[in-house]
Amino acid sequence: MTTQKPDLVTRTAQSTATAVHVRGRDLVNDLIGKYSFTEMLYFLTSHRMPEAVETRVLDACLVTLMEHGLTPSAVIARLMADSVPEEPQVAIASGLLAIGSVFAGTTESCAALLLAIERRIAAGEVDAVENVAREYDKAKKPVPGFGHGTHKPDDPRTIRLFALAEELGKATRYVPLLRALGKAVDAALGRHITINATGAIGALLLEIDVPVSAMRAFSVVSRAGGLVGHLLEEKETHSGRAIWAAAKKTVPYSEENQS
Amino acid sequence: MTTQKPDLVTRTAQSTATAVHVRGRDLVNDLIGKYSFTEMLYFLTSHRMPEAVETRVLDACLVTLMEHGLTPSAVIARLMADSVPEEPQVAIASGLLAIGSVFAGTTESCAALLLAIERRIAAGEVDAVENVAREYDKAKKPVPGFGHGTHKPDDPRTIRLFALAEELGKATRYVPLLRALGKAVDAALGRHITINATGAIGALLLEIDVPVSAMRAFSVVSRAGGLVGHLLEEKETHSGRAIWAAAKKTVPYSEENQS
Amino acid sequence: MTTQKPDLVTRTAQSTATAVHVRGRDLVNDLIGKYSFTEMLYFLTSHRMPEAVETRVLDACLVTLMEHGLTPSAVIARLMADSVPEEPQVAIASGLLAIGSVFAGTTESCAALLLAIERRIAAGEVDAVENVAREYDKAKKPVPGFGHGTHKPDDPRTIRLFALAEELGKATRYVPLLRALGKAVDAALGRHITINATGAIGALLLEIDVPVSAMRAFSVVSRAGGLVGHLLEEKETHSGRAIWAAAKKTVPYSEENQS
Amino acid sequence: MTTQKPDLVTRTAQSTATAVHVRGRDLVNDLIGKYSFTEMLYFLTSHRMPEAVETRVLDACLVTLMEHGLTPSAVIARLMADSVPEEPQVAIASGLLAIGSVFAGTTESCAALLLAIERRIAAGEVDAVENVAREYDKAKKPVPGFGHGTHKPDDPRTIRLFALAEELGKATRYVPLLRALGKAVDAALGRHITINATGAIGALLLEIDVPVSAMRAFSVVSRAGGLVGHLLEEKETHSGRAIWAAAKKTVPYSEENQS
Repeated sequence: MTTQKPDLVTRTAQSTATAVHVRGRDLVNDLIGKYSFTEMLYFLTSHRMPEAVETRVLDACLVTLMEHGLTPSAVIARLMADSVPEEPQVAIASGLLAIGSVFAGTTESCAALLLAIERRIAAGEVDAVENVAREYDKAKKPVPGFGHGTHKPDDPRTIRLFALAEELGKATRYVPLLRALGKAVDAALGRHITINATGAIGALLLEIDVPVSAMRAFSVVSRAGGLVGHLLEEKETHSGRAIWAAAKKTVPYSEENQS
Repeated sequence: MTTQKPDLVTRTAQSTATAVHVRGRDLVNDLIGKYSFTEMLYFLTSHRMPEAVETRVLDACLVTLMEHGLTPSAVIARLMADSVPEEPQVAIASGLLAIGSVFAGTTESCAALLLAIERRIAAGEVDAVENVAREYDKAKKPVPGFGHGTHKPDDPRTIRLFALAEELGKATRYVPLLRALGKAVDAALGRHITINATGAIGALLLEIDVPVSAMRAFSVVSRAGGLVGHLLEEKETHSGRAIWAAAKKTVPYSEENQS
Repeated sequence: MTTQKPDLVTRTAQSTATAVHVRGRDLVNDLIGKYSFTEMLYFLTSHRMPEAVETRVLDACLVTLMEHGLTPSAVIARLMADSVPEEPQVAIASGLLAIGSVFAGTTESCAALLLAIERRIAAGEVDAVENVAREYDKAKKPVPGFGHGTHKPDDPRTIRLFALAEELGKATRYVPLLRALGKAVDAALGRHITINATGAIGALLLEIDVPVSAMRAFSVVSRAGGLVGHLLEEKETHSGRAIWAAAKKTVPYSEENQS
Repeated sequence: MTTQKPDLVTRTAQSTATAVHVRGRDLVNDLIGKYSFTEMLYFLTSHRMPEAVETRVLDACLVTLMEHGLTPSAVIARLMADSVPEEPQVAIASGLLAIGSVFAGTTESCAALLLAIERRIAAGEVDAVENVAREYDKAKKPVPGFGHGTHKPDDPRTIRLFALAEELGKATRYVPLLRALGKAVDAALGRHITINATGAIGALLLEIDVPVSAMRAFSVVSRAGGLVGHLLEEKETHSGRAIWAAAKKTVPYSEENQS
């Protein structure tokens, strides 16, 4: 059994009878009314308040992932809202559980790849970008942050995010690196693969010093906001019932090949 | 089996090969980089962009609920992060599941109570505020939005939120109503009961036209942001192990009274 | 802050270096290999081992609720398995979250109603059954355990469960009471309403002394077993993708009436 | 967008007005009252009814994992039951989310390792067992199914499960293989490492033809049963509040080193 380290503490927050302290700041007197949700999210994970351009970049990333229509997340949340109507947090949490490796989880792995390339370049490997592209091609593995089922040939969100980063002076290192990787990937594969929004967000978040380990969690927060809209609409339209009926029709029961 | 209504649609969002549309707006060209996460959250639920003061009120409400130290939500998220370290969304979603009727869920019921009082006043019941306070006292039921285990005699967040609402010209109707209810509750019970932050937030969100049905979901989004900080800290401190050990010590096994 | 009661203990279980104790029994030497999962489930909640007929009744109830085809639970689990393929517990847990008040949750409320009727009869109200039926009709509320969207005019599972209870000598009190309630409901409404399987299970579980507070949890355990089959099939068929596509087609995006 | 394959079907189950069909069988007339929950769980995943000894082995495995005292799963479920008391399925599902790679998830990987060793032996590698042990030692990776924080030097559940498998004539292939691996691991490391219960269960489930892909899900079902007991106890003892207080005491807030 693990025993408690004598110095185990939390630096995140505490509440007392007359105050709430958040990472050394007084929530009531220093934070409420003075900072936005987005600034606080940055503060809680990077332990300093963001500069104005950093906030704009983070807001752009959060806004980008809030909505993408009837994603599996949204479909799950709608079905759950129909089954457990009294508890909105159950519908939202269920939808968020689906933000895994398949959907939206690639922000983190794209950012990690960019950092790895940067280290290889720093170690003297001048062709690291091209080499990485060829390595993925050889291994027949998808490059994290590349490819999209719907957005072809390009993900319009990526184009906008890159332009915004440039406009804000935040395309100094990882945005150009991801762009270079995109060209190398196209060359290695002999065809154009889109840089998807989650990949682009990985680069933008690196530009503003967000830790890689926070990135998937940021996608989760962003999508939590989006799911609220689905939840309110579900209360009016009861789409969950129609989706359920469609699912049964789409996957009919068969007695054939019952072993 | 419910059949699909011919006119069932979503007005929330859709993605096509070259665009994402969100409630009639073009995500890429009209929203990314132009609006904050908080403004988008308002837009997705109230179907119009908020005015600047409304955004400030909503940000204040979201910031207030992000952090409250080691709440049950945060403890659950930390234990889960220790058990399923590869999937941050599982830890966040688990913590959010705890945002139910006991914690943070009272925003909604406090707001609903304020609306009910307003209706009774509109119907000619001049003493509706006092009557409601007495009704709860008689039924020995807690008034939603009142009382707090830690913050006594007053919840400092409430004081700050009310002051901010006044400063922003958004204490016109529901903030004064909740204050009046607070006085009536104290009078009915013969002792002072604090108006807690979730109650105050109920009043502030009504002031900026947030639908009651969105309020618990807003608390969920706010707390999702706060849990990200706990998650990152957990990766460094592994507090989950120590909390687990403490739980076992706190609740020892006994063979007595085994029926 | 609540402080720990000095006598707070768990009587459920503990593990030590050389043993695991479960409610006063030695798991390794007394339980493994000697009792079935179903007997243990009874033991953990009723604190005695069931008699053979009680086990048969409980097994029948658990088997009844395991499968009902593509329920919302199963649809959610399939979508989740597609989104988070590495973590089967996430898909199962998501499906189980949907076992709420709308689906399967009525076992508990039907059992509670039967106990309430029994108390009214014991208090001298000879027509309690008929009165209850009329009260629900008057209030235009559905009687818990009655009505089914698919199984009409009768739920075949109910007929089988009642017959089995009789065969096993376990239709002595609550099964006849539920049958009587069924007749009274039909009379009060002037048309036949089916007693659904969750209602019947409420009566059978009362016959074998299962606490009402365990009943919804038993449905959850039963359905957990059923979801395993959906999960394995999902790995082969990837029905989640087709269900997602069907959902998008069923709920198309519309820009009309965007307020 | 993925389109539906024309032959997409479910072979699991369907319900019609008068019947429920489960993998080609009539639930009402063929299954309810005739088979146990454990037999049905086997049937739903292996698509044939188990023989009597297979059922005994599966029951032993399920009973083994139901309870292990205040595991993180149980602690999470108790905290959640305290936060969302109206929805038992939320507490159970939350606890189950923690059945991941760290706890109980190793059944699957131990079984997969045994199958890999068997294939290497079949391919002519006579020392495959010893080689695998050395490979893990060299890579300094823990062998799946080996080691336990509490049960030292041996996991008493493993000893019992192996003995039972022998008694039932179901220690013909994978149980002896796991035992041989245990000896090889001890030799390679130069010290004794226990074979834990989840490892042993991997071997026993292989002996009765359970697919590897179902194994973690079986642990989830087993633990679902165990959590019901914790839930009922929580309603009486409210241990969640004391665990929460202990967590706050264990992880105090510090303002030091706030970057």
